[in-house]
Amino acid sequence: MNGRLSVIGLGPGDARWLTPEAEIALAGAAALYGYGPYLDRVPLRPGQERYPSGNREEAARAAAALHHAADGGLTVDRVAAGATDRTSDVAGALSGGCHVALVCGGDPGVFAMAAAVCAEIERGPAVWREIELQIVPGITAMLAVAARVGAPLGHDFCALSLSDNLKPWEVIERRLDAAAAAGFVIALYNPVSRARPWQLAAAFERLARQLPWSCPVVFGRAVGRDDEAVQVTTLAAAQHCAAEFAADMATLVIVGSAETRVVTRQGQSPLVYTPREALRSA
Amino acid sequence: MNGRLSVIGLGPGDARWLTPEAEIALAGAAALYGYGPYLDRVPLRPGQERYPSGNREEAARAAAALHHAADGGLTVDRVAAGATDRTSDVAGALSGGCHVALVCGGDPGVFAMAAAVCAEIERGPAVWREIELQIVPGITAMLAVAARVGAPLGHDFCALSLSDNLKPWEVIERRLDAAAAAGFVIALYNPVSRARPWQLAAAFERLARQLPWSCPVVFGRAVGRDDEAVQVTTLAAAQHCAAEFAADMATLVIVGSAETRVVTRQGQSPLVYTPREALRSA
Repeated sequence: MNGRLSVIGLGPGDARWLTPEAEIALAGAAALYGYGPYLDRVPLRPGQERYPSGNREEAARAAAALHHAADGGLTVDRVAAGATDRTSDVAGALSGGCHVALVCGGDPGVFAMAAAVCAEIERGPAVWREIELQIVPGITAMLAVAARVGAPLGHDFCALSLSDNLKPWEVIERRLDAAAAAGFVIALYNPVSRARPWQLAAAFERLARQLPWSCPVVFGRAVGRDDEAVQVTTLAAAQHCAAEFAADMATLVIVGSAETRVVTRQGQSPLVYTPREALRSA
Repeated sequence: MNGRLSVIGLGPGDARWLTPEAEIALAGAAALYGYGPYLDRVPLRPGQERYPSGNREEAARAAAALHHAADGGLTVDRVAAGATDRTSDVAGALSGGCHVALVCGGDPGVFAMAAAVCAEIERGPAVWREIELQIVPGITAMLAVAARVGAPLGHDFCALSLSDNLKPWEVIERRLDAAAAAGFVIALYNPVSRARPWQLAAAFERLARQLPWSCPVVFGRAVGRDDEAVQVTTLAAAQHCAAEFAADMATLVIVGSAETRVVTRQGQSPLVYTPREALRSA
C-alpha cells in the first residue's frame, strides 16, 4: 500500500512558468489525472497513463487519483466498470501503490485541487491517509496578471472567488465589503461563467459603494498563452470594460485599493502599483 | 537610451522553484542588483556585474538598478563616487542602456521590489518611463508554506504584512479585524523582526477576539532551504509556539478561518485545509 500523489501546479499557460519541481514530478508519475485542457498542456510520455475529466468533477477526480495512487491502478478498470468486490484491493495492497500526478492550472492550493484532495483524504478510507501527498506549488493567476502591469498587489491584498456555486452570494458580498473597507487590494478569481453572468457587475457595484470611481481595475485573460489579453481601466468603467473584454473563466480581475496608482508611459502600457507605504488610516 | 530592467522572483530558497523565465532573465542580464542573501543564491556568471545592498534600502536599490538600465552602467562608478555632472549621462544616452536584473526572494510583486521600482519610475526622470520593465513572477512564501501542509489557502484568503514600519499599527489592526470577521484565511508576512518583537503576539490576541481558539495556525520558516521548519498548532497555542519556533523574518504564518480543518495522519504530519465550500454565513 502507500503510494504517492503529487498535486501539481502547472502555473498559467506559459511553459516558462513551469517549475523544475513540477517537471520532475510530472516525469516520474505512472499516471496523470486532471481537467482535460490542463492535461493537454503536459507533453505525452511513453507508458504514462492519462485520465482526463470534466471541469466540475473535482471531488470525483480527487478520489480517483487517490484510489489509483493507493492500489497501483489495478482497480481502475474495474471501478470504471462498476466492480464493487474487494478482490482487486487485495491485489492493490500487494502492489505497493504507485506515483500518480494530478495536474492543475496555476497553484494547486488556490481555488484548485489541493483542497479537494485533502477533503477526500479526510472522508475516504484510512489507507488514503498513508499515501505520500506532495503539493507542488505554482505561479497562481493573480501573480502572473500583476506582473504584467507592475505591482498592483504590492501591499496587503486578498483573493476571493466570485463563484457562488460553493458559497452563498451573501458571504461574497460581506467579504467584498470587508476587504474594500479595510483597504485590501482584491483579486477576483472565477469572475464570470455562462452560469454566472451577473456576479461580476454586482461585485463592481458593491465595491463602488466604498472605493473611489477612479480606483484602478486590471483585467487579465489567458496570461502566458497566445491569446493573452490585459487591460487597465477604472472602477467607473469596469463593467463596460468587462463586457468589451469578454471576461470569462480564464479571466482574473484585480481591483485596486484607494492607494493604488497608475503611471502613464509614452509608447508603453501604463504601470499599476500599490505603494508599500499605507500612510492614511483605512 | 531605453534599456531593460527585469525584476525577478527567485521563489523561496529551493532552486527547484526557480522558473525557466527567471533563469533566462538572469542569464541575459549584464548586471545584477539585490539584497545580498538573494544575490548569493544566483550562480556567478563571467562578465556579469553584481551590486548587493542591505535589507532596508529598497528605494535606493530600485533607483540604482533603473539608473544602470537606462545609461548602460556608464555612470555607476561616477555616481558611487559622488559625481554630479551630466557628461556621463550623455555617454549613457549614446550607449542605448543595458539589461539589468533586480532579484527578490519569492514573488517580486508581493511585499517585495516591484512596487518600489514602480514608485521610483513614477518619481524619477522621464527617461525611466522608457525603460522596458519586465516583472518575472515567482512562488511567493505563502504558496510554498501552504503546499507543505495541504491547502490552508484553499478558499478566500488575504495576505497582510505585519510590519508597521510603513503603515500605522492601527491600520494593521483594522485589517486583521476585517479579515477575521469576514472569514478570510490570513497569511502574515514579516511577522517578527528584532525591531518589531511584539506585533505577532498582538495580532494573535486580536484575531482570537473573533476566531475560535481551536483555529489552525501554520508556521513555516525558510521553506525550501536546508533549515526548513514547519509547524501546525492552534490559535490558543500560537504565541507559545511562535516563541519556541523562534519565528523571524524568514517565517510566514498562516492563520486559518473558522472553517479550516486539520486531518491527522498516522506516521505523517497532519494536513491543514480550508474546504472549497463555505456554507455558513460569515
